[in-house]
Amino acid sequence: MTEAATAGRRARGGGGAARRAERTAVSVETAKYIERNIPNYEVLTEEALDTIERNAETVLAEIGVNFVDNPAALQRWREAGAEIEGERVRIPRGLARKLCSTAPSQFTQHARNPDRNVVIGGKNLVLAPVYGPPFVRDAEGGRRYATMADFEKFVKLGYMSKWLHHSGGTVCEPTDVPVNKRHLDMLLAHMTLSDKPFMGSVTEPSRAKDSVEMCEILFGKDFVRDNTVMTSLININSPMTFDSIMMGALEIFAEHNQASIISPFIVGGAMAPVSVAGTLTQVLAEVLAGVAYSQLVRPGAPVIFGAFVTSIDMNSGAPTFGTPEAAHITYGAGQLARRLGLPYRSAGSFCGSKLPDAQAAYETSNSLQMGLLSGVNFMLHACGWLEGGLVASFEKFVMDADQLGTLHHFARGVDLSENGQAMEAIAEVGPGGHYLGCAHTQANFKSAFWRSDLFDYKPFETWDEEGARDTQTLASIRVKRMIDTYVQPPLDPEIETRLRAYVADKKASMPDSFM
Amino acid sequence: MTEAATAGRRARGGGGAARRAERTAVSVETAKYIERNIPNYEVLTEEALDTIERNAETVLAEIGVNFVDNPAALQRWREAGAEIEGERVRIPRGLARKLCSTAPSQFTQHARNPDRNVVIGGKNLVLAPVYGPPFVRDAEGGRRYATMADFEKFVKLGYMSKWLHHSGGTVCEPTDVPVNKRHLDMLLAHMTLSDKPFMGSVTEPSRAKDSVEMCEILFGKDFVRDNTVMTSLININSPMTFDSIMMGALEIFAEHNQASIISPFIVGGAMAPVSVAGTLTQVLAEVLAGVAYSQLVRPGAPVIFGAFVTSIDMNSGAPTFGTPEAAHITYGAGQLARRLGLPYRSAGSFCGSKLPDAQAAYETSNSLQMGLLSGVNFMLHACGWLEGGLVASFEKFVMDADQLGTLHHFARGVDLSENGQAMEAIAEVGPGGHYLGCAHTQANFKSAFWRSDLFDYKPFETWDEEGARDTQTLASIRVKRMIDTYVQPPLDPEIETRLRAYVADKKASMPDSFM
Repeated sequence: MTEAATAGRRARGGGGAARRAERTAVSVETAKYIERNIPNYEVLTEEALDTIERNAETVLAEIGVNFVDNPAALQRWREAGAEIEGERVRIPRGLARKLCSTAPSQFTQHARNPDRNVVIGGKNLVLAPVYGPPFVRDAEGGRRYATMADFEKFVKLGYMSKWLHHSGGTVCEPTDVPVNKRHLDMLLAHMTLSDKPFMGSVTEPSRAKDSVEMCEILFGKDFVRDNTVMTSLININSPMTFDSIMMGALEIFAEHNQASIISPFIVGGAMAPVSVAGTLTQVLAEVLAGVAYSQLVRPGAPVIFGAFVTSIDMNSGAPTFGTPEAAHITYGAGQLARRLGLPYRSAGSFCGSKLPDAQAAYETSNSLQMGLLSGVNFMLHACGWLEGGLVASFEKFVMDADQLGTLHHFARGVDLSENGQAMEAIAEVGPGGHYLGCAHTQANFKSAFWRSDLFDYKPFETWDEEGARDTQTLASIRVKRMIDTYVQPPLDPEIETRLRAYVADKKASMPDSFM
Repeated sequence: MTEAATAGRRARGGGGAARRAERTAVSVETAKYIERNIPNYEVLTEEALDTIERNAETVLAEIGVNFVDNPAALQRWREAGAEIEGERVRIPRGLARKLCSTAPSQFTQHARNPDRNVVIGGKNLVLAPVYGPPFVRDAEGGRRYATMADFEKFVKLGYMSKWLHHSGGTVCEPTDVPVNKRHLDMLLAHMTLSDKPFMGSVTEPSRAKDSVEMCEILFGKDFVRDNTVMTSLININSPMTFDSIMMGALEIFAEHNQASIISPFIVGGAMAPVSVAGTLTQVLAEVLAGVAYSQLVRPGAPVIFGAFVTSIDMNSGAPTFGTPEAAHITYGAGQLARRLGLPYRSAGSFCGSKLPDAQAAYETSNSLQMGLLSGVNFMLHACGWLEGGLVASFEKFVMDADQLGTLHHFARGVDLSENGQAMEAIAEVGPGGHYLGCAHTQANFKSAFWRSDLFDYKPFETWDEEGARDTQTLASIRVKRMIDTYVQPPLDPEIETRLRAYVADKKASMPDSFM
């Protein structure tokens, strides 16, 4: 039985809300997560991997990591056998790796529509949209602070994007909602405007708790106890610092068996050494410590080996994207994650460009390609990222989301069936003939080649007459059309009422804060 | 001794012109060809490769290939043991592969400046610009028929492009020069305006002969007899047709020990089956026949296994680029070429877009990445391609040429030296510190990370104040600056005089023809 089938069975087994959603599901076409039928690309030799692993253990044992403002964490580490000095935790060789071994190599994240469940790990690749930008941009309105209305628009686009499997989390920061309340509106949007899986809040442990409680309304309390329904993003403050807010959120999620991406956030040369092997060493040390800690909180808690790595332009200090050094690190970290037996998160629609132009697309393509071939299991920021992550772009969201189709088709691998070999077609056509009309072409052309739903494939003259539109212009049109034709996926009205009441009550319980 | 060093030694050994050029060379910085220190990506299993090889032999033995209007070729094949029926050549199993075995697995193509010699084959990758477009485009003048002035501008840009190793051939079609004379002007431009290696003419056997004769002036007759100084593009008329013009040019080049790329030109679904394995089978059969034929003309003649493959949009009939199916074929053909022991040509700055916009860059990046990882040894069209090859774009030329730097840096692989491991830096900085000022960063930052010479890395506010320029606008500025600062590489005046006289005499010897 395939992993997908397993996921489907589990989903059918659990949750009244899920069953109700299944009965009423609308047919927005969404690809299942990618199941790779291709090899991974491995840039490091076994010897190199051994060296990096040995060095990472040295870092943990001799330098150690800091768990800041978190006496409970220090106590857990002490009991596990680490050496504590102030907030510094030195982890004896082998201990972190041993603790990591209880983390599952793959897990199912359930969606309220079980057709949208994703299995994270193994040969799979799950694609989720951009996360975190305080600004949005579109061709019409330019660059501006993001609002809740923008957020909802992105959730709708994500729901309607065929090649996107996941609704994501903070697709942009709704800056018009108080900081202490916006997680509620964001979760409500993911839960009501989409039926794809989503992420929880990590900006405060209490907000992680709210995320769990809202999921209990959406999925049912029993279902959430037994199943993973959120995957959330826990960043490590590189180098080697685990702050109490992120760790507090991690603790909440781990205790509730919800998944966390444990991810160093590294601009190479600033938060890690200005070398690939050095950066990989630090990344591995940090992930080992973070994952080990999650397993101290709850053995078996689902976690993902994260690596967000960019290089730096030493002329300007700007982070740079789609660079060969970032690719080395992404490929190498994938190998390290597989040796640890953990799902892997990296890559995305990364770019430094201010506009969804050629620079943006070169950098993004480089990143998406390496994401596929490096064996990434969960790709956050898979579409919509602009300007180093400061901006979520509506046009780039649909441009990237369209490109994600190429990853799906490439991952299928090569069909070597008799039909794939096409020997009859070659014999039928023969030297000097052409294949357009032959039986094999007629039987296969619809599914044979990936085509973009966005790009221009028209003859020059037609394209010119229609206004000589560039990709951004075509994408603007597509954004409008998608939003105009959006239909909300059905949700049990009682559940929706309870979710809205929860949000209203929570908001009423505290004063606004924009800090 | 490395291949590069071998190439250098051979170069120093031969050719007065080469020695003179060496003494007077100006210092335009050009990267040596790429020597990969990374593995190739292999999408096909051994079993799949066996199947495709077996099928290709079946195609050659049972279906055969056509050598059109070429009795001498049929005679050569007959003597080699093939079965001839009209123009159809059926090649018994194993014969073509056996004939291919005399072709060298790598060879040096000499440039008039021996520092620019390239070694084609092995782990190397040589990058050459776009070939063949009848139109050019720039932001100022839009799309128009190409002229000789455009051609010269492209040769200058190629000469000045750091990451481009080769001056190419028909960088655009100079449509203002008669068809029967333009090869002379094109060769003269490559020989005088650049000192990088170049390609010969293939549009008529007599023009191939002219190419050899001009090289004899440039390099000296003895040097050309003993060395390869041109790599030219011989397309196969897929499916399985070898026309007398292309074969005539191949014969001239092979007889003179000059290199040919033997390359099926395939739009999948039209000139080959609408499946990856079927297309690979046909590509392999065609290349086997073409390379075998080159070795019948002259055993040991240098040749390259070519594969130009795009998919088709079955809605519009347009060729599509940067697609996953083209990538499967490119990776698979690389594996087949290596099993044959031949240098491999594929990939390039392929795109279908009419503009150097995001579509162009997504498609191009996909192609460049697969070119690097599939083990391509000679990449034609590595920069400047637009609109399915109908247009050579000045802006895209410099945009792509800049991106080629990422291939160089990625191909270096990961430095696992003590400096690369950076353990002292990690210890020095420690948890919560930062790396910008540490000794390791100071010692390494200049060479650590690739940076674009074109892209925008500025803060948003600066970029906005400077006019919010997109990549095309930045590229326009770069094109102008490069052309303004171009300095012709020195060439022995006597040689230049003789070349110009040859061209003038040849032109005077025949009436203009635009057919």
